[in-house]
Amino acid sequence: MKHLLSIADLSAAEITGLLDEADRFHEALHGREMKKLPTLRGRTIFTMFYENSTRTRSSFETAGKWMSADVINISASSSSVKKGESLKDTALTLKAVGADAIVMRHPSSGAARQVAGWLTDTAVVNAGDGAHEHPTQALLDATTLRRQRGQIEGTHVVIVGDILHSRVARSNAELLTALGADVTFVAPPTLLPFGVEAWGREAGGQVRVTQNFDDALRGADAVMMLRVQQERMNGGFFPSHREYAVRYGLSPRRLAAMRDGAIVMHPGPMLRGMEISDDVADAPNAVVLQQVTAGVHVRMAVLFTLLVGPQAQLNLGKAQ
Amino acid sequence: MKHLLSIADLSAAEITGLLDEADRFHEALHGREMKKLPTLRGRTIFTMFYENSTRTRSSFETAGKWMSADVINISASSSSVKKGESLKDTALTLKAVGADAIVMRHPSSGAARQVAGWLTDTAVVNAGDGAHEHPTQALLDATTLRRQRGQIEGTHVVIVGDILHSRVARSNAELLTALGADVTFVAPPTLLPFGVEAWGREAGGQVRVTQNFDDALRGADAVMMLRVQQERMNGGFFPSHREYAVRYGLSPRRLAAMRDGAIVMHPGPMLRGMEISDDVADAPNAVVLQQVTAGVHVRMAVLFTLLVGPQAQLNLGKAQ
Amino acid sequence: MKHLLSIADLSAAEITGLLDEADRFHEALHGREMKKLPTLRGRTIFTMFYENSTRTRSSFETAGKWMSADVINISASSSSVKKGESLKDTALTLKAVGADAIVMRHPSSGAARQVAGWLTDTAVVNAGDGAHEHPTQALLDATTLRRQRGQIEGTHVVIVGDILHSRVARSNAELLTALGADVTFVAPPTLLPFGVEAWGREAGGQVRVTQNFDDALRGADAVMMLRVQQERMNGGFFPSHREYAVRYGLSPRRLAAMRDGAIVMHPGPMLRGMEISDDVADAPNAVVLQQVTAGVHVRMAVLFTLLVGPQAQLNLGKAQ
Repeated sequence: MKHLLSIADLSAAEITGLLDEADRFHEALHGREMKKLPTLRGRTIFTMFYENSTRTRSSFETAGKWMSADVINISASSSSVKKGESLKDTALTLKAVGADAIVMRHPSSGAARQVAGWLTDTAVVNAGDGAHEHPTQALLDATTLRRQRGQIEGTHVVIVGDILHSRVARSNAELLTALGADVTFVAPPTLLPFGVEAWGREAGGQVRVTQNFDDALRGADAVMMLRVQQERMNGGFFPSHREYAVRYGLSPRRLAAMRDGAIVMHPGPMLRGMEISDDVADAPNAVVLQQVTAGVHVRMAVLFTLLVGPQAQLNLGKAQ
Repeated sequence: MKHLLSIADLSAAEITGLLDEADRFHEALHGREMKKLPTLRGRTIFTMFYENSTRTRSSFETAGKWMSADVINISASSSSVKKGESLKDTALTLKAVGADAIVMRHPSSGAARQVAGWLTDTAVVNAGDGAHEHPTQALLDATTLRRQRGQIEGTHVVIVGDILHSRVARSNAELLTALGADVTFVAPPTLLPFGVEAWGREAGGQVRVTQNFDDALRGADAVMMLRVQQERMNGGFFPSHREYAVRYGLSPRRLAAMRDGAIVMHPGPMLRGMEISDDVADAPNAVVLQQVTAGVHVRMAVLFTLLVGPQAQLNLGKAQ
Repeated sequence: MKHLLSIADLSAAEITGLLDEADRFHEALHGREMKKLPTLRGRTIFTMFYENSTRTRSSFETAGKWMSADVINISASSSSVKKGESLKDTALTLKAVGADAIVMRHPSSGAARQVAGWLTDTAVVNAGDGAHEHPTQALLDATTLRRQRGQIEGTHVVIVGDILHSRVARSNAELLTALGADVTFVAPPTLLPFGVEAWGREAGGQVRVTQNFDDALRGADAVMMLRVQQERMNGGFFPSHREYAVRYGLSPRRLAAMRDGAIVMHPGPMLRGMEISDDVADAPNAVVLQQVTAGVHVRMAVLFTLLVGPQAQLNLGKAQ
């Protein structure tokens, strides 16, 4: 594995390998006061975010620093892009400065793959490319699901909201079906991509689509609420705020109708009262913060795998 | 001590303990070319600034890095706040990422205390909350005063300017009176909070209020000039620039009238020619830069005390 | 050497010393997976950029981190400048916080020298001051030229574009002529500074000026294209985009007319299609990325020389 560009690129075995590696980092750090492993000392990681994201950027930065890497942040607002430089030249420049890995978020689908095509010896991690993929989000969701439910195969996950524009939905559908889970999308018809039912893998789980949230919830092991992007509310894609909350929001009543042990997930940031009600966000089976914690483990696993190798002997050294 | 939210929370003994710890860090670093202690290695500190501040943020970042902590900066402009996330969810997210401490500045009074109420096992340091408190500023002011004057008890400090909106004035008044110093506020009547005379502690020093700057200066051991916030100049609170400078500015004539050995303090950034004249800012008894240096020591002391424990044996190791 | 403010301050021997030091860092890092030297551990470097620059800031940050220094970034947008603080007070504050070195970019010519005049015991590195100098750019250009052509003395370098506003052109002319290279400027008459022909040093190389790009190219060992600053295109200084590209752009035809082994340089970011055509930017003898890599070595050499001493025994330790 040279880059992590999309879940669609990964075999089921590779996905499981990354989940296992994330759990190994979880164990390695668990209960330690000193969260510092020497594994990536002397490696240089650039984060290059053309869209702001507190949680994803700081999660990668934390992952890198806990493995003793040097992490250098580049944000769009201060970047040469403003001066008319091409994405290719920016990427080649970061490599020439000395980047071992570039973690990038970009508003255009396919941007990370383009960059990977221009680089050799520098790993590219897609931290979100337009409406296409956000693979580490799907990996952290799967890590959380597996930690909570014991396994992924055979589980049934309901994903709710703006499927059309959601890289989170796409990456999750790819991952979950590859590992044998079933996925049901619940969304307004205007927010469903064309051909979405065919997203599932032949050998894996199924993808279904419905507009009946209540029906879908009944057999779910997990429900994953997508973030409503406010800027799309006025674009004609959406019903009104109120109508959206009624039809697609996760209310206490819906929560109560869920199967025992079923969990509630959200990639954050949550708009409480809109896609998820306050009480549900704070319910014991909402695992939103467990997702955040898993995110650091997953990003450690990804960076480690790309820079050192898959299933490499984790050099935990002694706590430093 | 789990958090540092306000000076009003601290006993006189706790305040003195932090000043002593700051002096220990001062000694530990003094004359060393290598400013690097292993004390917080493997700890993760987030700075979360909803208002910009070069000096406070970089002072905390320096304090953390000199103790080998990982420091990760989050600024409001790139934060999820913009996407509608609640302060609570942002704080819980940083904790879930792995924050051992969150250093936060926020425009709302009480914001840091709210965040502390939501977190367990993560220390919260208030780096300024609205017009309420800025406790590390008061601690660094006291450290400077004690280093310059030998002690705090029995000293007389004059604080001049916009008391109403100043978290610096409030934190200083709390700290100084708790340690037995007397405080005189000099301010336009429109910039004095209601009931300000009662701020002093029963067992401690007194708070007085006057509009006669010259009278107040005569017996002062230290005069502390507050920053004039330009954005408030047009709000009807303030006299004109010129009138302000004449009545409340620290001029060479006023400096000359001060007692021998009395010092001039300013939290910065200074508006030379406005609240403080150029000559005064550069006078030998102006200790503005000593305050800045003390700030790093105080912040090391605070982070160390919160993350390792009060009066813990400082592990200076050998220079690394 | 206490500061690096301009190439004009340096003797030929000092320049050569820095180029040699850059090559030593190049060798020290070459082929290492772990790019981490202990040389500046415990030193604190502030970058203070009043103008944005991805490549220069991240190059200095990388240089500092690879030598184990603490690097703290201050940007104009979050700086106290906005609050009305003087440059002097900002600089003295960073020193008081604990800066061993301040790397600064500022829109005003002479800003770095002013700051250096106010500071003792803190090294100032000019990372670009207005239209004046950008010494580390010239040093990295010279490092690249020497690596590619074997030596600098006797080479002939053509510098093309907006000489008037270019700190890169000025620093390069100073450095190249000091080391005995000849420089030819090619520029529209409106973009040539008055008296530019006299820039060369008495004992060194010559400076010539022409508007005939094709003539100038014939004997060149290197051509250095300057960045067209879009914001100046409407100021009456410039011909139209198209006319500029025709008269002063580096086209494949011009590339083909160059001497064997001659190289193409650009400080970046490039505006492909404007000052340099796409094919030329990607030609094998375009060394733009080698310049970027040399930049890290040069900045390591500069920081090391200023903080530890010229030609100091480089403590490579073992890879850490």
